[in-house]
Amino acid sequence: MLVVGELINASRKAIKAAIEAQDAGYIQKIAKDEVEAGSHYIDVNAGIFVGKEAEYLQWLVKIVQEVVDAPCCIDSPDPKCIEQALKIHEGTAMVNSISLEQERYNAMLPLIAGTDLKVVALCMSDEGMPETMDARMRIADKLVNSLIKNNVPMTNIYVDPLVQPIGTNSSFGIEFLNTVEAITKTFKGIHTMCGLSNISFGLPNRKFMNQMFAVMAIAKGLDGLIINPLDKAMMASLITAETLRGSDDFCVKYLKAFRKGAFEF
Amino acid sequence: MLVVGELINASRKAIKAAIEAQDAGYIQKIAKDEVEAGSHYIDVNAGIFVGKEAEYLQWLVKIVQEVVDAPCCIDSPDPKCIEQALKIHEGTAMVNSISLEQERYNAMLPLIAGTDLKVVALCMSDEGMPETMDARMRIADKLVNSLIKNNVPMTNIYVDPLVQPIGTNSSFGIEFLNTVEAITKTFKGIHTMCGLSNISFGLPNRKFMNQMFAVMAIAKGLDGLIINPLDKAMMASLITAETLRGSDDFCVKYLKAFRKGAFEF
Repeated sequence: MLVVGELINASRKAIKAAIEAQDAGYIQKIAKDEVEAGSHYIDVNAGIFVGKEAEYLQWLVKIVQEVVDAPCCIDSPDPKCIEQALKIHEGTAMVNSISLEQERYNAMLPLIAGTDLKVVALCMSDEGMPETMDARMRIADKLVNSLIKNNVPMTNIYVDPLVQPIGTNSSFGIEFLNTVEAITKTFKGIHTMCGLSNISFGLPNRKFMNQMFAVMAIAKGLDGLIINPLDKAMMASLITAETLRGSDDFCVKYLKAFRKGAFEF
Repeated sequence: MLVVGELINASRKAIKAAIEAQDAGYIQKIAKDEVEAGSHYIDVNAGIFVGKEAEYLQWLVKIVQEVVDAPCCIDSPDPKCIEQALKIHEGTAMVNSISLEQERYNAMLPLIAGTDLKVVALCMSDEGMPETMDARMRIADKLVNSLIKNNVPMTNIYVDPLVQPIGTNSSFGIEFLNTVEAITKTFKGIHTMCGLSNISFGLPNRKFMNQMFAVMAIAKGLDGLIINPLDKAMMASLITAETLRGSDDFCVKYLKAFRKGAFEF
C-alpha cells in the first residue's frame, strides 16, 4: 500500500500562511510527521498561488527534501509548475497528474515519457468527469495504452478513477469500486490510487465514511491512497485491510503496528 | 444486508446459565435488544446440552417468539434438534445449516426440500474444510445445484464460505473474499453469509479486525452476517458499507442512522 501524505497543500489555511511567511520549520515539521506516520511520498501543492505557484512549489520541494528521505508527489494543475519543481527534485518523484484532457495530456507527456517518474493518471477527459465504470474504463484504456507506448512502465502508473460524492448519486461508490477492480484485472502490474474525501461530501460523520470506503476499495484492489497519515483510525484501517487481503506474511506488519500503538485511537 | 443476532448461544456462559435456570426473562430481554439493534433473525443455539438440546432449543424458540416478531435462525449440529424446533416455530425460520457432509446433508435435505425456509449452506464436505476459493467453489457448486434440484429457491440459500484465521495462513482472508465474489457472480439471486470471529483468532485487537473484514466482504458482495448486533462500531460499519455499495437511495438509511446516534461509539 502506497501512502501519499496530503497535508502540505496550500488550500489548507495553516499551510497557506506558512508558505506566505516562508516558515520552513512549520512545513518541515509536518513533512517529518507524515513520514513518521507511514507516508511513502509527501504531496506538495501550492496551486492556490496564481503567478507565484512555480516559485512556492520549488521552495516546498527544497525544504521538504532537506528533512525527509521520502520523495515528493508534485501536485499541480499547471504542467509548467510541475516541470519547474522536477528540475530541483532529487530522486524519483511522483507527478500528480496526467489525464486524457488534451491540453494537460500534451503538456505533461513530454515530462514523463521515457523517465522513471511515478505518475498519477486521472480518469478524466475533455468530455468531463466520467460517472460509470464503463466511462472510466474507456478513458483508462486510452490513457494507459498511450503512456505505455511512450515508454512509461506499467508499474509506474497510478490510475485514479476519481471518487465522486455518494450523496449525489447512490451508485457513485460502487461504480468507483468496480473500476478499481476492472483496472487491476485489465492492466497487470498497474497501480490504482485516489483521494477519499469527495465520497462523503455533504454528509455527516465524514471521517468514518472515508475510512470505510478506503477499506472497501482495498478489498477491490486499490493499492495507493492520498490521505492524512496522522489520522490514526484511517492508518489502522489500512494496516488491517492489507493484512486481511494477504499482503502481510505471518501478520508481521499487523503485530508490529499493534505493539507500536497503532490501534489506540 | 441481513443481520442474524448471535447472542442467544449456549456456548456463552450467561446464556447457558439462563437456560439451565429456565430464566425466560433474561433470554427475552436479549432477543428484544437484538431486534431493536437491527437483527432480522435471532439465532438460537443450545448445542452444548447433549441429550437435552432438543428440549432446550424448543424452549428458546418458544420464549423468543413470545416477545419478538423476527423469526429464529435455528442453529444446531443435530438435524433432529432442528426438526423438533421447526415443529413449534411460527412463520418462516432460517435453518443453520446444511453442508455437503453426507450424513448432515441426508438428514437436513428432507427438512428443507420444497419448503420456504431460509437455509445456511456451509462450504464444507467430508473431505474437511476447504482452504482455497477453488475448493470452496467445487463444494458450493454441488451443494447449491442439489438444493435447487430439490426445490429450494436460489433466493432462500445463504452460502457460508467459512471464515478461517488469517493468523494461520495469510491467504485465508483473500481466498474467502474471492469466494464471496465468485458465488455472487456465479449464482444469480443467491445470498452469502458468515460469522466473522474466526478471522482474527489468535491475534490482538480482534473486534476491529472483524469489523474491517466485514466491510471488505460487503465490498465483495456479502449480504448476510451472524454478529453481535449490540456492537455499535460493527453496526455502524455495516450501515456505512451498505450505503457506499449503492444499497441506500439518497443515503436515507445512513442519515436516519446518524440521527439515531448509530455513529456515537
